[in-house]
Amino acid sequence: MDKTRLEAFSDGVFAIAITLLVLDLHVPHTDGSLAVQLGHRWPTFAAYGVSFATIGVIWVNHHTLFRHFASADRTMLFLNLALLGCVAFIPFPTSLVSAYATASNGSNATTAALVYGGTMVALALLFNALWHYGRTHLLAPNADIREVSGITRSYVVGPLLWGGSTLAALVDARLSLLLYTAVVAVYVVSSSLYGRTPDAA
Amino acid sequence: MDKTRLEAFSDGVFAIAITLLVLDLHVPHTDGSLAVQLGHRWPTFAAYGVSFATIGVIWVNHHTLFRHFASADRTMLFLNLALLGCVAFIPFPTSLVSAYATASNGSNATTAALVYGGTMVALALLFNALWHYGRTHLLAPNADIREVSGITRSYVVGPLLWGGSTLAALVDARLSLLLYTAVVAVYVVSSSLYGRTPDAA
Amino acid sequence: MDKTRLEAFSDGVFAIAITLLVLDLHVPHTDGSLAVQLGHRWPTFAAYGVSFATIGVIWVNHHTLFRHFASADRTMLFLNLALLGCVAFIPFPTSLVSAYATASNGSNATTAALVYGGTMVALALLFNALWHYGRTHLLAPNADIREVSGITRSYVVGPLLWGGSTLAALVDARLSLLLYTAVVAVYVVSSSLYGRTPDAA
Amino acid sequence: MDKTRLEAFSDGVFAIAITLLVLDLHVPHTDGSLAVQLGHRWPTFAAYGVSFATIGVIWVNHHTLFRHFASADRTMLFLNLALLGCVAFIPFPTSLVSAYATASNGSNATTAALVYGGTMVALALLFNALWHYGRTHLLAPNADIREVSGITRSYVVGPLLWGGSTLAALVDARLSLLLYTAVVAVYVVSSSLYGRTPDAA
Repeated sequence: MDKTRLEAFSDGVFAIAITLLVLDLHVPHTDGSLAVQLGHRWPTFAAYGVSFATIGVIWVNHHTLFRHFASADRTMLFLNLALLGCVAFIPFPTSLVSAYATASNGSNATTAALVYGGTMVALALLFNALWHYGRTHLLAPNADIREVSGITRSYVVGPLLWGGSTLAALVDARLSLLLYTAVVAVYVVSSSLYGRTPDAA
Repeated sequence: MDKTRLEAFSDGVFAIAITLLVLDLHVPHTDGSLAVQLGHRWPTFAAYGVSFATIGVIWVNHHTLFRHFASADRTMLFLNLALLGCVAFIPFPTSLVSAYATASNGSNATTAALVYGGTMVALALLFNALWHYGRTHLLAPNADIREVSGITRSYVVGPLLWGGSTLAALVDARLSLLLYTAVVAVYVVSSSLYGRTPDAA
Repeated sequence: MDKTRLEAFSDGVFAIAITLLVLDLHVPHTDGSLAVQLGHRWPTFAAYGVSFATIGVIWVNHHTLFRHFASADRTMLFLNLALLGCVAFIPFPTSLVSAYATASNGSNATTAALVYGGTMVALALLFNALWHYGRTHLLAPNADIREVSGITRSYVVGPLLWGGSTLAALVDARLSLLLYTAVVAVYVVSSSLYGRTPDAA
Repeated sequence: MDKTRLEAFSDGVFAIAITLLVLDLHVPHTDGSLAVQLGHRWPTFAAYGVSFATIGVIWVNHHTLFRHFASADRTMLFLNLALLGCVAFIPFPTSLVSAYATASNGSNATTAALVYGGTMVALALLFNALWHYGRTHLLAPNADIREVSGITRSYVVGPLLWGGSTLAALVDARLSLLLYTAVVAVYVVSSSLYGRTPDAA
């Protein structure tokens, strides 16, 4: 089975999920100060930015991964579908966090942060499953062995980073949200650096 | 007429419909426990998962089907459009089932389950119509005759499976919802197994 | 400038607009009979079907048109953008008609029908503008002269058909809605017949 | 890294963002005159048109830009992601302006106009950043030097035009909205003229 189709479909879901995030930004209806109202809603804008960057990082990772596969089979197709199900789900935990990050009821902020982090842990585990299945069944003959081991090693870190940040929500919801932001920032920066090195070489 | 265009357009509709399902997941507004509220809404999350898997299965089937066609004509184009109309409709019966699966008014749960199942029956019948028209008018010269008869046989089962599950709603709405889930699970598992066999061969 | 890009972008907008129509189907919240509530909302479902078929017909037409062009330039690009602006707008008049088709205030039903028909007239005029510009500036060297004149003739009919149906709203809103449905049905049937003739030839 | 993927993904986000604008057009619920209600909401329709044209212009610009690049790297990918984040954000300031353009509270109209203009300034700056990075790192070997300098010069104008129009909101919100419309109109007209010249040459 050709992998082009699967990649195009996945790109479609990524593009739609990343663009639907804006639907969580509601216009405040106020006779008072709009500027003040928008200011109060800063968690909504922060959540938009973090989730946008997260889906962006996932998109970049997805391409790196499939570049190493020669083809796709139906098992890969359904593993990938499970991954897309989590990506398409992201706008929901994003809304939850937007609504409850600054809630007076602290345990609700924790619930929201746990759902967000849990989605990310599921994604990190699914990335590992996809990579493991693809590496053992569909690896391109010309795949660079050192790059392959590099990906395997780096993918082990994902569930740990996201899992740890999620558990932090049990201590303080805001701490975990900060950690989520930091994890995404690390991915963006390290990807950019990693991406430039081969050009320099 | 080239079939690439039709496939790309269909993939677009599949990707959007599957991603719009998330818009049915609303953030509960509560001063009480968010975790409890989310727990009460489990049918919404179950419906998200089942409908996501259903559209995924439809996407896989659609590709299998068109791989056997040499081209497309305008009749195929409008048959396919009718199919896409049902796929794009899926978020609505999904919302209905989410809202009424656990309704105290049992006949409303039945109505919701019937609309959901009816949509699936319509889809199964349209798949048969597309396949019948394409097989008799547009079959690729190099199509494997045994594979073609295999698809014809397996497509007869679809309307029966979905029709039977839908009728079960007249007895008990929850029974039919369980059957819908089972039917989709069977498709996912059998597709995956079917997909791996040729690799093993 | 390559026309592939323009076509892919247009297909994206068509696929999204056609799939967003489902967002106008709201789940009724009722303690009474859900079946009765859904029955009352038949105009919403009829409008979904008609608008879906309309965008489908536009998509088919758009392809027929661009098949005759050798390339695209920036004027074509912005003419096409105006067309896409009208297509992406369709969910709004569809909602209007859904909400007001059976309104007790008859003049509101007329307003809704006029907005719907006006959008279709604008689309028909824009199709003529695109075709006129493309035919005189970008025609493919191998375009069949007889087919080109055939399209020119058939495109003149569009604004008249839609314009007449729209004016009918001034007499009776429901009459115009019936005419819109009839016009789309004629396009679907005639396209299908037209599409099969060359295959038979 | 191949730039085709990046362009296809960007086109997807552009197509979705431009089509989501329609979700800001709400059906008025009234027992009075629907025509009068729609008339009162003219800023919503104007905002739809202006934002649609804006995203269209951005799409055209994006293609012009990437036509001059030989490939993409990860830095470009994340710069482009930031640009897409702003494009996908456009429906929100569009809603803000729709809701507050004619607000009795003048300072809220100013806030809305500033958020809209600020988004456009961010986009103009990001276009400059993308172009600067791409021009110095990824330029296609066959890129026309005169065209490259032409783009560099014209891109400097963007932040000034949008910045000036945004600052006008501090004097009068409606003035800035008129200026935004004028800037987009200038882009559409000049692009069309520019696009036709090479054909004439």
